[in-house]
Formats: sequence, C-alpha cells, structure tokens
Amino acid sequence: MSLEHDLPPEIAAEVYASFGKQGLMGAIGAKLASVASGRCTITVPFSDAVGQQHGFFHGGIIGAAGDTAGGYAALTVLPAGSEVLTLEYKINFLKPALGDSLAAEAMVLRAGRSVIVTRIDVGVIKGESRTLCAALQQRIVPAPSKEYVR
Amino acid sequence: MSLEHDLPPEIAAEVYASFGKQGLMGAIGAKLASVASGRCTITVPFSDAVGQQHGFFHGGIIGAAGDTAGGYAALTVLPAGSEVLTLEYKINFLKPALGDSLAAEAMVLRAGRSVIVTRIDVGVIKGESRTLCAALQQRIVPAPSKEYVR
Amino acid sequence: MSLEHDLPPEIAAEVYASFGKQGLMGAIGAKLASVASGRCTITVPFSDAVGQQHGFFHGGIIGAAGDTAGGYAALTVLPAGSEVLTLEYKINFLKPALGDSLAAEAMVLRAGRSVIVTRIDVGVIKGESRTLCAALQQRIVPAPSKEYVR
Amino acid sequence: MSLEHDLPPEIAAEVYASFGKQGLMGAIGAKLASVASGRCTITVPFSDAVGQQHGFFHGGIIGAAGDTAGGYAALTVLPAGSEVLTLEYKINFLKPALGDSLAAEAMVLRAGRSVIVTRIDVGVIKGESRTLCAALQQRIVPAPSKEYVR
Repeated sequence: MSLEHDLPPEIAAEVYASFGKQGLMGAIGAKLASVASGRCTITVPFSDAVGQQHGFFHGGIIGAAGDTAGGYAALTVLPAGSEVLTLEYKINFLKPALGDSLAAEAMVLRAGRSVIVTRIDVGVIKGESRTLCAALQQRIVPAPSKEYVR
Repeated sequence: MSLEHDLPPEIAAEVYASFGKQGLMGAIGAKLASVASGRCTITVPFSDAVGQQHGFFHGGIIGAAGDTAGGYAALTVLPAGSEVLTLEYKINFLKPALGDSLAAEAMVLRAGRSVIVTRIDVGVIKGESRTLCAALQQRIVPAPSKEYVR
Repeated sequence: MSLEHDLPPEIAAEVYASFGKQGLMGAIGAKLASVASGRCTITVPFSDAVGQQHGFFHGGIIGAAGDTAGGYAALTVLPAGSEVLTLEYKINFLKPALGDSLAAEAMVLRAGRSVIVTRIDVGVIKGESRTLCAALQQRIVPAPSKEYVR
Repeated sequence: MSLEHDLPPEIAAEVYASFGKQGLMGAIGAKLASVASGRCTITVPFSDAVGQQHGFFHGGIIGAAGDTAGGYAALTVLPAGSEVLTLEYKINFLKPALGDSLAAEAMVLRAGRSVIVTRIDVGVIKGESRTLCAALQQRIVPAPSKEYVR
C-alpha cells in the first residue's frame, strides 16, 4: 500500500472503512491496493464469479472496479466525513481482459466544489505482463446530494 | 418470458445458453427475463453481494446488467453462431437504486454489418413501483473481431 | 413549428430568444424547428462551413446541433428565467452524415431538481429520405450553477 | 509547430492537407498548432461565430476542436494514405470556456489494427492563464470502413 504523506490519515481510514462495507467488492475478492491524494488503485483476482462466457473478466466487473476506484480517488479530495456517488461514466474496452488479475488506477482530473471528474485506466495482469484493457472517464458528486436524490 | 415470433428459436436458444455460461450473472442471481428480436431484459434481485456502502445496488452491477442486456439484444440481430463483445458504453445514473430488484431493458438502435449500437434503460423495482435509475448507450461488435483483438 | 399547449408561452419565448443569441447557431444557419415541453428539434442546412474533408457534415456540427437541442429541451422543463449548461454528453456516430440538412431531436429522459438527463437523435435528410446518423446522451444543469463554476 | 522526428514527413503533409479541406475548421479560424506521432493540438480563436448565449465558447466548438484533434492524432499512427472517421466520443465540460482561444490536445491511448482510442484535453487560454475546460475520450476507425458505412 502506498499512502502519500499529504493524505490525512483520517481520510485514508474512511476510504478503507467504506471499501470494507461494499458487499460487491468483498464478494469478488477486490482489494484496495493503494490510496493517495487524488488517486486510488483497486485490484480484482480472476475467478469464475467475475468471468463472462469467453473466460475473460466480465465487462461489468471491469466497469465496477474502475467506477469504484474513481469514487475513492474522489473521496480523498473531499473533507473528512464526506461520501460520494457516481453520476455517470464512459468506458472504452481496449483489449480482451484475459489474465490473473485486474488493476484499476484512478486519478482526479478536476476537483470542483461539488463535482469531481476522474479518469481511470484498467490493466489486466497475466504473469509479468500488464496490458491496458479499459479506459474510463467519470463524474462524481458528494453524497447525499440534492442533485442526485430528487 | 416473451419471445417474439420473428426471433428464430435457434438464436433464442443460443442467447439462453450463452447467458448460462456467464459466471458473474450466475453469481449474482441474474435472470434473462425476456428476449426478442433486437430486445433483451435482464433482472437482478437485491442481495448483499450486489450492494454498495449505502445499501443501494452497486453501480457496477447496474452497469453489468445493462451492458449484458445490450449484448444479448445485439446477439438477436446477428446470424446464428455469432458472439458479441462490448466496445464501449456510457452510463448515466439517474436515481439511487434502492429496491428489491433491477430490470435492465435493452433495444438495438442501429444494426450495421459489423457494429451495433444499443440503448438500455435500467429500472429499480420496489414493491409495485418501478423507477428509472440508469440509462446506457452502448456499442457492440461481433466476436472474435479483428477490431478488438489486435 | 409545433408548440404543445402545455408549454407556457413565456418559456417558449425565452427558448427562441436564447437561441437567437447563439453566434454559432446563427453562423451555420441553424433553425429551431420545434419546441415543446421536454422536447426540441434543431435543423442545420448543409454548407461548406459545416463540412469536413469528405463532404459529410462535420461531427462537431452534429454534436453541436444535438447538444444545443438537448439544452433547449431541458430549458422547457425549468421555471421561466432559467438558463442551462451542458455538463457532459456522449455521442455515437451511426452513419456518415451526407445530405441536405440535419435534424437533431431531443427529449428529456429525467428532470431532477438540479440535473436533467436527455437523449437526442440526429437524422440526416437527403431528398425524401431520413437516416439516423447519430445518438447522444447528455446531462444538463441549470446555470449559473455552483457545481460548474467553482 | 512541433514535429517529432519519428513522424514521417509524408504523413505530416497529409495531416496538414486534410485539415486544410475542413470547411468548418476554416470557417472558425482553427489552426493545426502541432502534430507529432500519436499527438495533435488544434487551436481556435474566440469570435462571435463560436460563441453561445453567455459569451463562452460554444460546447459544440469545444467538441469539434477536441474531436478533430483526436482524429488527426489517430491519423499519425496509420500508414500514409489512410483516412479516419470518429465512431464516438464522450465529453465532460469542466469549466466555462471563457477566454481568448481554445487549445485541444489529443493523444492516442491505444492504436489497434482497425480501431484507435484517444484522450483529448481542451484548455481555454485567457491572457497568460490556461484552464482545463473539457476532457474527451474518443474512438476512431480508418475510413472508408465497412464498419461505419453499412
């Protein structure tokens, strides 16, 4: 785990605590591999439960890992006690995700008062090689948000 | 299950067989609720394994259900024996997905020789009410595709 | 021009007045073809000034027409005196846009308190035929917005 | 103009020649500021013809500049004699684009045999300051493409 020294420890603690409450992330064996100011990496090991009909990682899992990494990258640039919701994302699949694990690396592109835009690269790791398999662009808001909950 | 009479039975059979091989869909209890020419609906019951930290359906599952419904809608407009891959999708989250189940309804917007564009509406069902919670726009190609696999 | 009777005349007037102030729309000869509650259609005639290197409508003009139609569809569901800003859109190009004119037809998919999601279909018209050439999904906020202007 | 020495001169020449044929780019005074292998920057000066109703750059022009920069970045990674078409892009608007000029900087993220994915940052320049105002993610194919033209 890398933890940049400019990320307040209470925010890092909140990120780990929140991640621990995500049923889906637990169910698929995902790990919070690193968190830093404006950045977050999540890894997911391959298993049948995350596969699709060709034996690749399911696109939904690639999206979920990317989306979640972006959300926690966003959480690191907000005050302690914040929560976040994804408003939207766009994902391009670049290569079949065939490998031992995924690594979704998110970085905050812009942090506004109430909206955060991130980019996320998802790589698939097979032995010693790592291939970029998907790219996301995502918009996040602090939650609860009057914007999202009508 | 609704099965429009213009969908050849062998294609419907392929859709159901392919869906049955998706580890992720099985792991989360997803069902292929309906398939017709250019259309497909997938439902997902709520469980901890598909939740996020606020008790809503995880956005990744909403994306996975939508993406998968779009893929099978696309499969229905291709010749028997085809397979599909998602190239990209964009998802807007419209409302928190709090409820008993999700229903992702896909329709093919354009079916070209080698590329198919779909739109998918995802509703969340709570008791008797149904709320549109996400909207996707997606691009699919037949697989194996020289476009996708370099 | 079709003007559904449930659209208050003062809002219709604001839409037309705002459209008239858009330098780009004037420069390319775009017209506000129709406006109704939650809906708007904009047309653009072909000219060299809107072309690209193959003689098709430039994708940027297709995007601009679609984006603008979505913005005015959104304006119709807000109180009089509102203004709007686009936060993001996704556009899929479906067919080469070769023809005499474009027609971008927008409809509001969800109107929340502070965020509106629209879908827009763009058709290209050649003689008597009309072909769907692009599809957009877009997110709009009322302006000035603390969300957008930091 | 920066021209990296690994970009064959005939391809650079094709990029400039193709850009010169784009009616829209000429009509708005856009310039090809730089081209290199996998990269392209386009600038657009402010004028009424590229404005919207609040005096900002019109989102459609921001999209057009970004889309075009991505297309030429893609052209630099293809064999001489190639042409390109945009299949889709997603744009997030990050800040109001109020300034003297726009600069759209594109880079190729993945260059496959028949599909190229790019990311584009669009900045707005006012005096000496430059602000990131939009971010795009885009998919390009060589043209004529059986995929695009049915």
